[in-house]
Amino acid sequence: MSVKIPRGFKFSAVEAAIKRPGRKDLALIYSDVEATAGAVFTKNLIKAAPVKICIKKIASQKARAIIVNSGNANACTGKRGIEDANEIVRLVSKGLNIDERLVYPASTGVIGVPMPMERIRTAIPDLIGGLGKASLEELARAIMTTDTFPKYISADLKVGDETGTITAVAKGAGMINPSMATMLCFIITDLSVEKLSLSKALNEAVEQSFNRITVDGDRSTNDMVMIMANSLAGNDTITMKSKYYKDFKKVLNSITYELSKSIVKDGEGATKLIKVIVRRAPSRKDAELVARGVANSLLVKTAFYGNDANWGRIMAAIGASGAKVVEEKIEIYFNHLQVVKGGMSAGNDSTANELLKASKELNLIIDLATGKEEFSVLTCDISEDYVRINAEYRS
Amino acid sequence: MSVKIPRGFKFSAVEAAIKRPGRKDLALIYSDVEATAGAVFTKNLIKAAPVKICIKKIASQKARAIIVNSGNANACTGKRGIEDANEIVRLVSKGLNIDERLVYPASTGVIGVPMPMERIRTAIPDLIGGLGKASLEELARAIMTTDTFPKYISADLKVGDETGTITAVAKGAGMINPSMATMLCFIITDLSVEKLSLSKALNEAVEQSFNRITVDGDRSTNDMVMIMANSLAGNDTITMKSKYYKDFKKVLNSITYELSKSIVKDGEGATKLIKVIVRRAPSRKDAELVARGVANSLLVKTAFYGNDANWGRIMAAIGASGAKVVEEKIEIYFNHLQVVKGGMSAGNDSTANELLKASKELNLIIDLATGKEEFSVLTCDISEDYVRINAEYRS
Repeated sequence: MSVKIPRGFKFSAVEAAIKRPGRKDLALIYSDVEATAGAVFTKNLIKAAPVKICIKKIASQKARAIIVNSGNANACTGKRGIEDANEIVRLVSKGLNIDERLVYPASTGVIGVPMPMERIRTAIPDLIGGLGKASLEELARAIMTTDTFPKYISADLKVGDETGTITAVAKGAGMINPSMATMLCFIITDLSVEKLSLSKALNEAVEQSFNRITVDGDRSTNDMVMIMANSLAGNDTITMKSKYYKDFKKVLNSITYELSKSIVKDGEGATKLIKVIVRRAPSRKDAELVARGVANSLLVKTAFYGNDANWGRIMAAIGASGAKVVEEKIEIYFNHLQVVKGGMSAGNDSTANELLKASKELNLIIDLATGKEEFSVLTCDISEDYVRINAEYRS
Repeated sequence: MSVKIPRGFKFSAVEAAIKRPGRKDLALIYSDVEATAGAVFTKNLIKAAPVKICIKKIASQKARAIIVNSGNANACTGKRGIEDANEIVRLVSKGLNIDERLVYPASTGVIGVPMPMERIRTAIPDLIGGLGKASLEELARAIMTTDTFPKYISADLKVGDETGTITAVAKGAGMINPSMATMLCFIITDLSVEKLSLSKALNEAVEQSFNRITVDGDRSTNDMVMIMANSLAGNDTITMKSKYYKDFKKVLNSITYELSKSIVKDGEGATKLIKVIVRRAPSRKDAELVARGVANSLLVKTAFYGNDANWGRIMAAIGASGAKVVEEKIEIYFNHLQVVKGGMSAGNDSTANELLKASKELNLIIDLATGKEEFSVLTCDISEDYVRINAEYRS
């Protein structure tokens, strides 16, 4: 992965032993100058303290720093959780000598445990002192929980004569059921982007990436995607009306899509990445219901894990999805291999089993043949390791 | 389990080697006289051939025989599937010399594979010849798929001077996600029950039993619950207005509840039976959303498997359920042990871990404290064995 950092951004990562010692778990993202900001948060009604705080802060659409910890979600922690997150923000703002309102807190980890504030208080001066010393990868590693690899990406964009950079880090427990896992993503750019245009682009990017790996649009208590644009590239400000807006959205979409893909790829215990593509549905809603229904079916996921082209389970998941479907019209393909024709076996089961055995990535195409709408969702298979990881996660 | 058989009913079970040889997989339930009948079917839009046929037949509310096979669902088999099921019905009606319209087919097993009609044709004469020779347990075993134990139950009911018997068999792969598993249940009684009253009672019984172990009301392609009442007990016909209707419903509810419980208990790879009880919800819909959301959360299920009182995952599932909840008011109990108080830890995590270790059955009580409505769902934990069983099921 490319690792270019936009001008004026610095990182830091230290070990605060938030859950247990032995790894960096507290990180800081800092912009030398005030940045325009936008964010998208979990729709879960039960929100972590930092999320509650950020929702208020982001109304200003301004930011300079994000402080994020792994190992503790600071969720279901009541008033104390809010006070703790506010204290962290205050300590960072004092240490950096910047306006408190421009510092955003984020957390991921175990729910319901008070933050180990003494260790965090001790760690913050080191965190601030270390600004500029951490690489993008170290930042990405500090926010990991059950992730098996760090997730980051960077791309350049030419706007007129100026070239800006858009860089992002993400973490995702890569859950089989991402609605319940925490997904964090922080995007930084030195491009100048008008604030409403920035928010709009971010929302659209999230819609076609992170929202396509979740169930029912539900999310964890802590999910958060945030973008900071600090204008240091010196470009003419991008607005919805400027000709570069489309290019900007394209890069942002691509970056968020790649990161969302890497989250599914890192699915706990997963062995396969499956893109469920629903075609020719009577409505977008129907397409989405089928895609999410199939992508979340445990029986479909376990069949993929077993390299079993058990398309009957896919048909059952389609029928149970709540979407309007006509059994006799359904066609299903694994990549280019047809497995269901007119709602019945296409006679390719053994070839399909071989294809599954040979594939780490697969397109599962469901053609409903009753309309023109499409929707796709990224998912992964489920293995015994998923159960093992999640049965042992907290202990 | 008690095994009393209502008057005038006989069973038979033979080996037709439908999926593989070595077990009885074709069964017949027969009433000496015409019975009043009612049935509830899967809501899955993709329905197995026998389900499509039974939906038409049941309009008459009359039945004499049910022929059921395991090993093949006869679903996604097109016109041939319908023809096959109709031929099976014809062969049985000829063999028994009864009206074709009174014979009901049912199937459970793999989807998308044509029925092995030659073997079934050969087996049907033996099946009919063997009527009266199979026990209730043999019947229950013949309809099993991944079940680890046969499921049957019987109860007596006194109606005036006459005592009738209600007996039922069920099969359920005991899926973690029963919406996708096939659940079959056949209930027979020698009581006389008026047909509309019978259907109403059956619907209510299913609602408080089998529908409380499913996700979102979704079901497999083959789900079916059917009741036959042949009047041989000689009681005054029970109607909605008669004083015995309440008693009849009580017994029927109890029988179906016990069978639904045994299906969850037999959950593939499950080690724990968990009753999720939601109390004091603002509406019944909210209570149901929370109960189903928690009961189907993979993260909650794996935590229970790991004997980890990870109530944070329960809180997150509550918040993601779509129900109206107030975080600060939520209280959660494991049996009588409070684990969440006012949306936060009640400080009993280690005691709760011990309780989980010691419990095969557990009440998970979620008190929303914002209303008066209740809903409960039976679920089980998920282990590595669930994945193993379902990754290997077809191969």
